[in-house]
Amino acid sequence: MNTWGRSGGGLAEIIAVGSELLTPFKTDTNSLFLTAGLNELGIAVERKSLVGDDPAVLRDAVQGALRRVSLVLLSGGLGPTDDDVTRETVAALLERPLLEDPVLVAALAARFSARGWRMPENNRRQACVPEGAEVLENPHGTAPGLWLEQGGRVVLLLPGPPRELEPMFTNVVRKRLESRVGSGRLYRRVLKVVGRGESHVAEATQPIYDRWRQSEPKVETTILASPGLVELHLSVWSEAPTTATKVLDVATAELSAALGEDLLSTDGRSLAEVVGQRLVDAGLRVGLAESCTGGLATSRLVDIPGCSRYLAGAVVAYSNDAKQRVLGVDAAMLAEHGAVSEPVAAAMAEGVRHVVGADVGLGVTGVAGPDGGSEAKPVGTVCLAVAGPGDEVSTRIYRWPGDRAMVRRMATLAVLGLLRRRLLARRG
Amino acid sequence: MNTWGRSGGGLAEIIAVGSELLTPFKTDTNSLFLTAGLNELGIAVERKSLVGDDPAVLRDAVQGALRRVSLVLLSGGLGPTDDDVTRETVAALLERPLLEDPVLVAALAARFSARGWRMPENNRRQACVPEGAEVLENPHGTAPGLWLEQGGRVVLLLPGPPRELEPMFTNVVRKRLESRVGSGRLYRRVLKVVGRGESHVAEATQPIYDRWRQSEPKVETTILASPGLVELHLSVWSEAPTTATKVLDVATAELSAALGEDLLSTDGRSLAEVVGQRLVDAGLRVGLAESCTGGLATSRLVDIPGCSRYLAGAVVAYSNDAKQRVLGVDAAMLAEHGAVSEPVAAAMAEGVRHVVGADVGLGVTGVAGPDGGSEAKPVGTVCLAVAGPGDEVSTRIYRWPGDRAMVRRMATLAVLGLLRRRLLARRG
Repeated sequence: MNTWGRSGGGLAEIIAVGSELLTPFKTDTNSLFLTAGLNELGIAVERKSLVGDDPAVLRDAVQGALRRVSLVLLSGGLGPTDDDVTRETVAALLERPLLEDPVLVAALAARFSARGWRMPENNRRQACVPEGAEVLENPHGTAPGLWLEQGGRVVLLLPGPPRELEPMFTNVVRKRLESRVGSGRLYRRVLKVVGRGESHVAEATQPIYDRWRQSEPKVETTILASPGLVELHLSVWSEAPTTATKVLDVATAELSAALGEDLLSTDGRSLAEVVGQRLVDAGLRVGLAESCTGGLATSRLVDIPGCSRYLAGAVVAYSNDAKQRVLGVDAAMLAEHGAVSEPVAAAMAEGVRHVVGADVGLGVTGVAGPDGGSEAKPVGTVCLAVAGPGDEVSTRIYRWPGDRAMVRRMATLAVLGLLRRRLLARRG
Repeated sequence: MNTWGRSGGGLAEIIAVGSELLTPFKTDTNSLFLTAGLNELGIAVERKSLVGDDPAVLRDAVQGALRRVSLVLLSGGLGPTDDDVTRETVAALLERPLLEDPVLVAALAARFSARGWRMPENNRRQACVPEGAEVLENPHGTAPGLWLEQGGRVVLLLPGPPRELEPMFTNVVRKRLESRVGSGRLYRRVLKVVGRGESHVAEATQPIYDRWRQSEPKVETTILASPGLVELHLSVWSEAPTTATKVLDVATAELSAALGEDLLSTDGRSLAEVVGQRLVDAGLRVGLAESCTGGLATSRLVDIPGCSRYLAGAVVAYSNDAKQRVLGVDAAMLAEHGAVSEPVAAAMAEGVRHVVGADVGLGVTGVAGPDGGSEAKPVGTVCLAVAGPGDEVSTRIYRWPGDRAMVRRMATLAVLGLLRRRLLARRG
């Protein structure tokens, strides 16, 4: 169900233009950005279309959208070549002659000459404006945006490249739309949950958000699940920012209480960010010994700027030889328990702690597949360990479904999750 | 321009159904898979639509598509809950009563009881079949697919989850469509190019592919660029597989000659796969010392099953302390040249080679940002080194634009690319 529809800002359609969008290799992502911006203003997106650079199909799509909604946003097809037909097609549909704008021609020519180039004759097309259209400046490219109104409806032509479209929407389009939709806005909060599946999150929280859905102002809730992570998206439509914030605060507090330690963050922070902050707070440094994850868990920590404060270092020991040679795992232990075992995970965690000089060591060893599984340890079996701070060592064994990439992803989230639990327990 | 349109297999539209597809958080990707499969049969996709679980909008979208094309594929909205309206909406539009299929009910019930569960009453909806529709078995879920024909047009209802939709298309739908489109097929070849930008690839290859575009059968070429990688997609539409293969072989050989050592693969293999295979062929094992990439380069190698044959191990040494402690980089060298320097990259590569017992060592050290840049070494500066086999050590310094993620991605591709060059040179 479209939860934004009732916000009262109206309905929009988004049309992405470009023949590459009809190949197996590329899809539209601009609409995700535009939808977020529209939703904040209470404008719901009712339909999205992807069409090629084909005047007949494009014309039909725009015509259909104009029959249905009051705001139609198009992205792409504003380039200088003959393939780019959006400007001409929309102008023809709205029966507006295209007029060359001398100011735009001069600006385009200046843009080229600033780089020491002569403006190609083709680019003059980008200075053509449908009669009555307002030009939206594009500081990041040669295709200006266009704002057209007809019969109370708005048609917006935006350039296709995200680095041109996004600032144009944020800096120009948003303000123009704001003045039309009144003072109501959508306020959002995201609760991230780890270590609990989607249905268990729903079970624990549904009684709470069902109640908030009926409050005034109401809090709409959407559950989004990806492997290893569940997100609750709360949104409140309100004319008063303070009211909205207060309502979201109270709803978030209730949901947080129901989720307990499985609640990762309420401010959008990722697992790696939360773990990093907790390590900084505790004054601890971590080392990682990765086998099947092969550097993925460490890489997540390095995604976060400033990680040198808490990342002592890591060793990828994919082979038994590396486990022995670099991490000092005992050959007899490997022979007795096998490389994928809780004792070996613990020895890896202890080993890397020593090697890199960390307070806490993490160990990951598993069968990511597609080969290497056995009856006792099928593909998807992963052993994790946390060693330290101090003498405490704990291990866990998991068995995940999915392919090599999925098993490695789940193991990465799980080992960082295990560290988070250790740090939470220590604090308590 | 849509290069598939002329293949003669007809035109299709794809409609993705689900209100989550109209939020900022999720978009349709099934259509990329479906488009690849349709294109192979010479069926071009003319338009894609994304609509919510809203009967009126969905009905309008299907009705519009049926007016325009002879094949309409829908994905999603076949679930057991009231939100899922695709089956009912399409049945109503085509004026087909929905009939409960006792065989499907029994199969669903058996599916649940095999897991020790009772079938929820809701799931009976998934056993309802529009009169005259053919049921497409779904071994991976509870929603069967449906194949409907009306007035010479085909409407296909497919489940939304990719792991259900993809095998259903490959195993059932493809064969049914094959029997309709004659013996012509699209044959493809992908040339991956590293170490050369899009415009340089175009410059070197355009005279060749312009000529092939005018040959008979013609070879269509599309250039796709992503950071650090350029792909040339060749396709030939032909009734004769041997002719198509021969034409693609000759065109590929010509393009390969023009690209020289920048040509990575002509069989879809990734950089990590190519590097892995070359290491196996050379009987060499590699070790990696990563600073700013933080395990990402190693993780790429571990993406490939069987990497233990050539991956000796890796060390992530993000801090200076770890560079000294684990890799044995000299403190004086760090002080003199700074951590981001070619001598330090070389020392890291030599160090890890020793630590993990590898034939070849790779070193990566850089300023990924957003902080840590200086005038001499701004954000984006990365030093790479390859040490071995034998005494040979080479280093490179790069400066990339973009954010932290982009710099780390480029450095990962570049260091594996440097190793590939070393192995190529050694062979020669």
